Amino acid sequence: MRDRYRKPKFRSGGKGPDRGHESGRRPPWRGREGSADDAVILYGWHTVAAALANPRRRIRKLLLTENAARRLAEDHIETRVTPEIVRPNLIDQRLGPDAVHQGLLAEADPLPSPDIDTLAQDGIVLVLDQITDPHNVGAIMRSAAAFAVKAIVTTARHSPEATGVLAKSASGALELVPLVTVQNLARALAEMNDRGFTTVGLDSQGSENLGAVTLRQPLALVLGAEGKGLRQLTRETCSVVARLDMPGDIKSLNVSNAAVLALYVGATRLGLMGKA
Amino acid sequence: MRDRYRKPKFRSGGKGPDRGHESGRRPPWRGREGSADDAVILYGWHTVAAALANPRRRIRKLLLTENAARRLAEDHIETRVTPEIVRPNLIDQRLGPDAVHQGLLAEADPLPSPDIDTLAQDGIVLVLDQITDPHNVGAIMRSAAAFAVKAIVTTARHSPEATGVLAKSASGALELVPLVTVQNLARALAEMNDRGFTTVGLDSQGSENLGAVTLRQPLALVLGAEGKGLRQLTRETCSVVARLDMPGDIKSLNVSNAAVLALYVGATRLGLMGKA
Repeated sequence: MRDRYRKPKFRSGGKGPDRGHESGRRPPWRGREGSADDAVILYGWHTVAAALANPRRRIRKLLLTENAARRLAEDHIETRVTPEIVRPNLIDQRLGPDAVHQGLLAEADPLPSPDIDTLAQDGIVLVLDQITDPHNVGAIMRSAAAFAVKAIVTTARHSPEATGVLAKSASGALELVPLVTVQNLARALAEMNDRGFTTVGLDSQGSENLGAVTLRQPLALVLGAEGKGLRQLTRETCSVVARLDMPGDIKSLNVSNAAVLALYVGATRLGLMGKA
Repeated sequence: MRDRYRKPKFRSGGKGPDRGHESGRRPPWRGREGSADDAVILYGWHTVAAALANPRRRIRKLLLTENAARRLAEDHIETRVTPEIVRPNLIDQRLGPDAVHQGLLAEADPLPSPDIDTLAQDGIVLVLDQITDPHNVGAIMRSAAAFAVKAIVTTARHSPEATGVLAKSASGALELVPLVTVQNLARALAEMNDRGFTTVGLDSQGSENLGAVTLRQPLALVLGAEGKGLRQLTRETCSVVARLDMPGDIKSLNVSNAAVLALYVGATRLGLMGKA
């Protein structure tokens, strides 16, 4: 049995589609950070306020400082469950000293992961190939929400949990952008190709400059892991692998920086920037 | 006397221009993380390889694993000092378990901080108003190097040290982009205005869309702290405060994501993208 108090860096579990059974049918993107079961831990103003505003998010428990409770009341945000009013250091103890929680901590159910065949046939989808750092994935989710991305597709394994640091970095975007979790990314990309997506892998060694690639909807932008980049099979399954030409001496960016730039270029070229 | 084994999150010291004396004339952006004096700690392949390739960076000490030493030799990178060949876990012990050091750790002198009046009169400069997270500042430096930014101006206080996590996130950019450290950011911006810079503050509440602002060289893009944004006096001193209009429900980005987008828009509009 798995040590349930461990803080895992990666999602663990079996291989392939049977994994759901092997790991006891826990839903994908379930949270375990700081929690005894599959609760998602949400903290910080934007993250908790967005969760409270999301009717699909079931809140199990809500800890608030007096100040945070007052601020929610002033902003007419319903708490939905009766909050426990606590002192800030109680939340500090739960989360550790580095978590900027602003007096709000919620335990909630994970959100459901939609199926890949429900993806919208317009707009932009982001695909993350084993990006492991929760700060990076959170920042990417936040940018995805800013650019009205339709969904984020990610692997069940080697992806951080949608909880804790990731949720904080996403700044509420977890509630706005559906996360589609797949067992096999190359198979998911092949399915997207079949359904008419242009699947554009981003890689500093890409054969074409993104500016020269024909982009059309539905568009999938595919980003590889920090350091490693896109896996071989991911690269081979993309419609095209493109680089972002830049004038300086460093030719690759932090992955969340690369993601937001690709989103901006994609949304601009597809005429999506003006849509509200 | 300051506890020299403490890991400071922020640069500490006195207020105002006398601070250099109060703190014993240590150079700005000196490193203390994991170090007994003002040594800068550099680890990871790109960060250490870039430092070894920078003749202005004095290397004091170099720890390498056998593999890393072999890889440097294969890439014809001179170590400049005689390396100590160590086992990986010795570097783990120095840096903690989360540092991805790839078998390389250098102790080095900090680089000198140029004066504000030496800033080039062309291209783009980034100005950081008390951005405190070393991952964010490191990612911003990396993007700055990718977009051939001429310098980064930052405050002496409330900025992370140019060492450790920041240096790792910068992925070698510390050696490429000069860091100008100032005591008073509003005064520095006023001086830049006087010297012909267009100083553009970025803020999600900005009065104009960045796309509608007239940009010309020399251009300074000014970014505010995570959560807090630009300080009042910073806003007032900028030539213009602009927002980045985006189509989604979230209107503000992670600060390093906002920085790279502003750089892309700025470099594109100024015709700098094609220059090598």
